[in-house]
Amino acid sequence: MTKPMTMTQKILAAAAGLPDVEPGQLISAKLDLVLGNDVTAPVAVKAFNETNTVQVFDKDKIAIVPDHFTPNKDIKSAEHCKLIREFARRMDITHYFEVGEMGIEHVLIPEKGLAKPGDVIIGADSHTCTYGALGAFSTGVGSTDMAVGMAAGYAWFKVPSALQFVLTGKPAKWISGKDVILHIIGMIGVDGALYQSMEFAGDGLQYLSMDDRFTIANMAIEAGAKNGIFPVDEQTIAYVKGRTGQEFRVFAADAAAPYSRVIEINLSALKPTVAFPHLPENTKTIDQVGDVAIDQVVIGSCTNGRMEDLRIAASILKGKKVKKGLRLIILPGTQDIVLQAMDEGLVRIFIEAGGVFSTPTCGPCLGGHMGILAEGERALATTNRNFVGRMGHPKSEVYLASPAVAAASAIAGKIVAPEEVM
Amino acid sequence: MTKPMTMTQKILAAAAGLPDVEPGQLISAKLDLVLGNDVTAPVAVKAFNETNTVQVFDKDKIAIVPDHFTPNKDIKSAEHCKLIREFARRMDITHYFEVGEMGIEHVLIPEKGLAKPGDVIIGADSHTCTYGALGAFSTGVGSTDMAVGMAAGYAWFKVPSALQFVLTGKPAKWISGKDVILHIIGMIGVDGALYQSMEFAGDGLQYLSMDDRFTIANMAIEAGAKNGIFPVDEQTIAYVKGRTGQEFRVFAADAAAPYSRVIEINLSALKPTVAFPHLPENTKTIDQVGDVAIDQVVIGSCTNGRMEDLRIAASILKGKKVKKGLRLIILPGTQDIVLQAMDEGLVRIFIEAGGVFSTPTCGPCLGGHMGILAEGERALATTNRNFVGRMGHPKSEVYLASPAVAAASAIAGKIVAPEEVM
Repeated sequence: MTKPMTMTQKILAAAAGLPDVEPGQLISAKLDLVLGNDVTAPVAVKAFNETNTVQVFDKDKIAIVPDHFTPNKDIKSAEHCKLIREFARRMDITHYFEVGEMGIEHVLIPEKGLAKPGDVIIGADSHTCTYGALGAFSTGVGSTDMAVGMAAGYAWFKVPSALQFVLTGKPAKWISGKDVILHIIGMIGVDGALYQSMEFAGDGLQYLSMDDRFTIANMAIEAGAKNGIFPVDEQTIAYVKGRTGQEFRVFAADAAAPYSRVIEINLSALKPTVAFPHLPENTKTIDQVGDVAIDQVVIGSCTNGRMEDLRIAASILKGKKVKKGLRLIILPGTQDIVLQAMDEGLVRIFIEAGGVFSTPTCGPCLGGHMGILAEGERALATTNRNFVGRMGHPKSEVYLASPAVAAASAIAGKIVAPEEVM
Repeated sequence: MTKPMTMTQKILAAAAGLPDVEPGQLISAKLDLVLGNDVTAPVAVKAFNETNTVQVFDKDKIAIVPDHFTPNKDIKSAEHCKLIREFARRMDITHYFEVGEMGIEHVLIPEKGLAKPGDVIIGADSHTCTYGALGAFSTGVGSTDMAVGMAAGYAWFKVPSALQFVLTGKPAKWISGKDVILHIIGMIGVDGALYQSMEFAGDGLQYLSMDDRFTIANMAIEAGAKNGIFPVDEQTIAYVKGRTGQEFRVFAADAAAPYSRVIEINLSALKPTVAFPHLPENTKTIDQVGDVAIDQVVIGSCTNGRMEDLRIAASILKGKKVKKGLRLIILPGTQDIVLQAMDEGLVRIFIEAGGVFSTPTCGPCLGGHMGILAEGERALATTNRNFVGRMGHPKSEVYLASPAVAAASAIAGKIVAPEEVM
């Protein structure tokens, strides 16, 4: 008889070849995917080379996605990309994505079927937790862990304890995954789930699309979590089967699984939520925001650069113009999303509204490029972090919200609810 | 009885209120447009402020186009854009183009009907000579000249002498304006027209579209010319009337106009032409190129980012893939071109071929962003300059060619003629 375990613990036990695991236990788990980008992979490649390992553990289980400073913004980023490009060629890495095939890693990886339920995934990027939406254990690591992961195919973990979030009720119009996760982070704080799993449950899940779930899992790290994870339901299965022919294993939390805390959230009571500078936990509901004029709106990123996000934004922007003088920047997640958004007429809506439709890139989210802020400027963004100087000048400000609030605010020139511009 | 004058001289005489002018004469000419971008306008604004002038000479005759480092790539460029944005607001400048309304200045200005035959235009950007395609006198100046131009509405010029290029015959398939101007620069050298006008004439003009002419006039500066200028024909009139309701005056060179040299060019004899590093005059015809493998192809810029350029490139790329590992970056000239290219299915062709379709920006042409080269990398580009380090690392190389050659080379992974991939 094994101990009752959370969903995360069951995945980790299986990957460690153990009948059960308990919180705090140190294990070595087999990896299904090791991921890096153009910021972290160069460091990992240098560390890998120092191990004198001749070949990576499995050329099909490594993904390298140059997405942060690509197409390259300067010589330094070009040199970094050259290094990882040459590594990928030398190791014959299957899932190296060149400029043109690229996308934002955390949008691209699920789209290409490279993350599946039950997988154990590490990525040298904090938002690697995104794939928890698919019922995978997925977490961000440092570049050295990525290096060792590429060499060995294993990583060690301290098994996390878990918080359970029981979602009930049906969200109102305009309420999306972004409002759910901002609400949660506002409630528990940026260290509210420190080194724990955030496990989602409840009959409210049926109202959350895959894109909602990606957004929620993506920001688990913003509450300090080791990972965020969703049960695998019909929606998940349909999503994954459309993208990979590979087998996968579905894990579910035991009924008696131990949670350090269970938090119930009534989705029907949520309002559009905005995180004020300079922490994602500084949330206010839209009716409490007051008069906050903005210079720039960013819609996209690994948090909200998926089709549903673009559709929602376009439904609000259609036939309207952004406030004179405001910059609206759309960051689609992948090239496939660019094509789909074109086919659906969304790109035309954004451009006719006065927006710029970027190539897929992380862009300004981390102060990279494609819309950096000057001193004193304010942006409302659908991205994931609003730390001091995150999008540019240390004296600039970033407010976080959903695509719906972002689109409406681009029209109004200040932070408003979608209803105010419809 | 006035002296016989070249087309340029007649425009300058009229703008100076003089019956005639002669080469070397210093004149003060009334300006129809003063132009700047996000690199040059910040310097001009500071100089303008030092003059203690309260208001610009005419808020409708100044254009400010942030196109080089936009959407902003870093804090420095964001600060520059903030400075010119605030200046444009304070002066109520009509033709300030914000991110989203933007384009590459030399594609945007003609498209918006802001350059007309007979105009005298200065721009703090060397490729301001582009508008000579419309029968305007148009030339690049320094930022201080831009500042004084904005304040006074006048600029002084030393009247240039002229070279006449008599174009005859019909160019073969795949030969475009880019091949014409590269051939000319290869022939006369990068100082072959130093401080002179390049005036185009001959029955071969009928075979050059407006987009061909923009490309040719755009690169007049690469032969050291003060300006390049085309006669105004039915094609020009149709182009301009479709874009502005304003009156304009058509000037033509006198039959006895003095030219320091007359050069005849048989367009039907031209071959696709490539400029090797590190000067535009280092030209070879495609049959002499040999085996030059490339890492990146850039199609677009103020030289070749117009609809016809994209159509030609797409006609070659359609249904094909770029060479594995090669980066193809498309830089459309304006947001209207983005929309048109989407409508015509060109963007889909580029992306399906493995390319990236950028926002309108000067991008990597001047080493700005959106595709900078690492050490030892080689790019083939439809841009205008291939100086040492122009697109990135001092040890990178840029080859210049037409959109047709660029598209074909992207498929082949080395510099080839269009026929080789069709």
